Amino acid sequence: MKILTGTTASILNELKTETTTSTSHQVETTVKAIIEKVKTAGDQALLDYTAQFDDVNLTELRVSNTDIQAATAKVEPAFLEALHQAKANIESFHSKQKQHAFLDSEKDGVIRGQLIRPLSTVGVYVPGGTAAYPSSVLMNVLPAKIAGVERIVMITPPGKNGINPHVLAAAQLAGVDEIYQVGGAHGIAALAYGTESIPKVDKIVGPGNVYVATAKREVFGLVDIDMIAGPSEIVVLADETANPTFIAADLLSQAEHDTLARAILITTSENIAQQTKAEITKQLETLPRRAIAQESIETQGKIIIATNTKEMFDIMNEIAPEHLEVQLENPMNYLHQIKNAGSIFLGSYASEPLGDYFAGPNHVLPTSGTAKFFSPLGVEDFTKRSAFISYTKEALAKEKDAIILLANKEGLDAHAKAIQIRFEEEI
Amino acid sequence: MKILTGTTASILNELKTETTTSTSHQVETTVKAIIEKVKTAGDQALLDYTAQFDDVNLTELRVSNTDIQAATAKVEPAFLEALHQAKANIESFHSKQKQHAFLDSEKDGVIRGQLIRPLSTVGVYVPGGTAAYPSSVLMNVLPAKIAGVERIVMITPPGKNGINPHVLAAAQLAGVDEIYQVGGAHGIAALAYGTESIPKVDKIVGPGNVYVATAKREVFGLVDIDMIAGPSEIVVLADETANPTFIAADLLSQAEHDTLARAILITTSENIAQQTKAEITKQLETLPRRAIAQESIETQGKIIIATNTKEMFDIMNEIAPEHLEVQLENPMNYLHQIKNAGSIFLGSYASEPLGDYFAGPNHVLPTSGTAKFFSPLGVEDFTKRSAFISYTKEALAKEKDAIILLANKEGLDAHAKAIQIRFEEEI
Repeated sequence: MKILTGTTASILNELKTETTTSTSHQVETTVKAIIEKVKTAGDQALLDYTAQFDDVNLTELRVSNTDIQAATAKVEPAFLEALHQAKANIESFHSKQKQHAFLDSEKDGVIRGQLIRPLSTVGVYVPGGTAAYPSSVLMNVLPAKIAGVERIVMITPPGKNGINPHVLAAAQLAGVDEIYQVGGAHGIAALAYGTESIPKVDKIVGPGNVYVATAKREVFGLVDIDMIAGPSEIVVLADETANPTFIAADLLSQAEHDTLARAILITTSENIAQQTKAEITKQLETLPRRAIAQESIETQGKIIIATNTKEMFDIMNEIAPEHLEVQLENPMNYLHQIKNAGSIFLGSYASEPLGDYFAGPNHVLPTSGTAKFFSPLGVEDFTKRSAFISYTKEALAKEKDAIILLANKEGLDAHAKAIQIRFEEEI
Repeated sequence: MKILTGTTASILNELKTETTTSTSHQVETTVKAIIEKVKTAGDQALLDYTAQFDDVNLTELRVSNTDIQAATAKVEPAFLEALHQAKANIESFHSKQKQHAFLDSEKDGVIRGQLIRPLSTVGVYVPGGTAAYPSSVLMNVLPAKIAGVERIVMITPPGKNGINPHVLAAAQLAGVDEIYQVGGAHGIAALAYGTESIPKVDKIVGPGNVYVATAKREVFGLVDIDMIAGPSEIVVLADETANPTFIAADLLSQAEHDTLARAILITTSENIAQQTKAEITKQLETLPRRAIAQESIETQGKIIIATNTKEMFDIMNEIAPEHLEVQLENPMNYLHQIKNAGSIFLGSYASEPLGDYFAGPNHVLPTSGTAKFFSPLGVEDFTKRSAFISYTKEALAKEKDAIILLANKEGLDAHAKAIQIRFEEEI
């Protein structure tokens, strides 16, 4: 793990990675053809692609309630109980995000205000196989539920043994309305256009492989989509009071996700830097996902020695990490210095996995520096605003000259006329 | 103007237009080359492209304060006064949109909450020439100001006589920090990558031609962008109490924008349908932008006769119009039936141009049916959320088994270990 020192500028330069969001032409062509096919052939195309890509011959796309109940019954009670507790925390936090309609004016003949409406139908994509994460089901579905979305449709590719029972149990707990066993680009196309079985949705959320991500980009505009997530990231800020064993474990918890995951320690303590480096080497030895974590640490991992606290925060804000741990003495005192970070973990015991599974805030977070302008998934991603106004004739009469003047200056005569004509009528 | 009758399904089928967001390959190639050039050559590329595309030889990219003052002094006082009034209304409405940090928990050793932070730097694109709209300057800049954005940078292409003084006056009134006289795809590239003169921004907003829109799509991800707006739309709902003269004028105020603009009346009254049709023909005769409005009305305009109020709202919600006028008796009573509409105008005197210029809600609105899932531009488009959590050791101890179980079920051992290791230390 490389240790970086130097000026803020030189360190930032060393960290610079060109974000590429380009997809291979080959993948794009394949995905476009799949979408076209689903648009025209509907359910039959979904059955054919499922046979081709998942090697599963389905007779029914929808997962029956019997199968969902059976899966939930199969899952161990302690797991369900843990999910229940996580759900309670997630609901508590996200309920606070709920926006409400407002009236800004209701006097002098002028009413103006804003409505908040839930999206009608939302599609949640859940990957299959080893990447099947029940926690992601909760994180994607519960904010939509709290927003008031009427119909939440989940799709997930079937394996040889059907669908992961933990995922089905999480879906039932979260309150998913319908589940379809279909994945890939064809699943995304089904949600965007609708088929005989699967309803067209307003928005598609949830992670997936490159085909799924490309399909989501293709249908964006026809439906809304969530962010396209990049590799996971963590930045840990530490002073000499921090615990190098904890820091190393937290860095590795991100590194095990993906060889491209990025784990960075920024510290003012040379001692903490060296001890953390040693701890990482030690902890890597017994890690089941060692191969992935080690490659991530070696190629993406960095330890930065900063000259002071201000520099620590400057570098961190420039990185704009998905996850930020503040392992500094009195971490709450530094909240105001954090500008750009998706999810913030304060103190030695707010370990990042606590946020992934349990604490309540969402784990769907902006990556690749986009925390500068994007937000964690939240309730407002499942609502939309509408403004409304009402003016009495008298109220409009007071303002008509100003409006007509502005319209005329922009050369939009019919705009001016629409106001004027309301006062010409009765001459 | 075609009059449609029939079932809801048949009417919706007739209205269906395939939304295409595809850009010609030619435009994309040109835009990509321009972006590359600006990335490498910076300011010099901007000066060269401005000479090439705008036929203007600049010595300075930044518009001086002297020029801005001079422009404001040239503008007639009544215009400035009208802008001032509009600004007050826009600020009043948008201030209500401001979100605040919250604490969801601060007991039992668990703190969790959410921060709201403004974006640091925002770029506002303002088109040049006849499409220069001072009202758009206010609508794009004021929500960013209210959000607390520190640095607002405006760019706009220069004409032979410099920049439209009304646009400069609006920029100064709105509180723009810096103005650069550069437009097109090269201007967008400058905002996305930064040059010697122009700062790299976090988000680019504002309308532009196909080159500007394509450049915004290209740089999306590196920076955030606002919606890519389609042609303007209005749906008017009217019963027999409505005034056909007003309806016709309002439909024409949208039709004059663009030959592809879409003006639709949905009414339960055959009488209102016929009278509005006649009024449109009459009012078109004296309209300065007749050629545009007439083509829009003939090719895109529709009058739909609905059998009852419910059908009226069903069809409207399926269209999800940018602008909706409710010219029904007691319009407030129908607010709950409106699911999908960007901006809503209630009653005979809430004419659409009132919202374009003056009333306060934003005029940057979702088009092409995207009001089903997108919102008007607002303060939250210039902020981002961050979650934060803090747990004491005791609080984490209570939950550790649940977290470890969830991590293990997902096969993420380093996640489990990061929690576990915090309680192994002191054995």
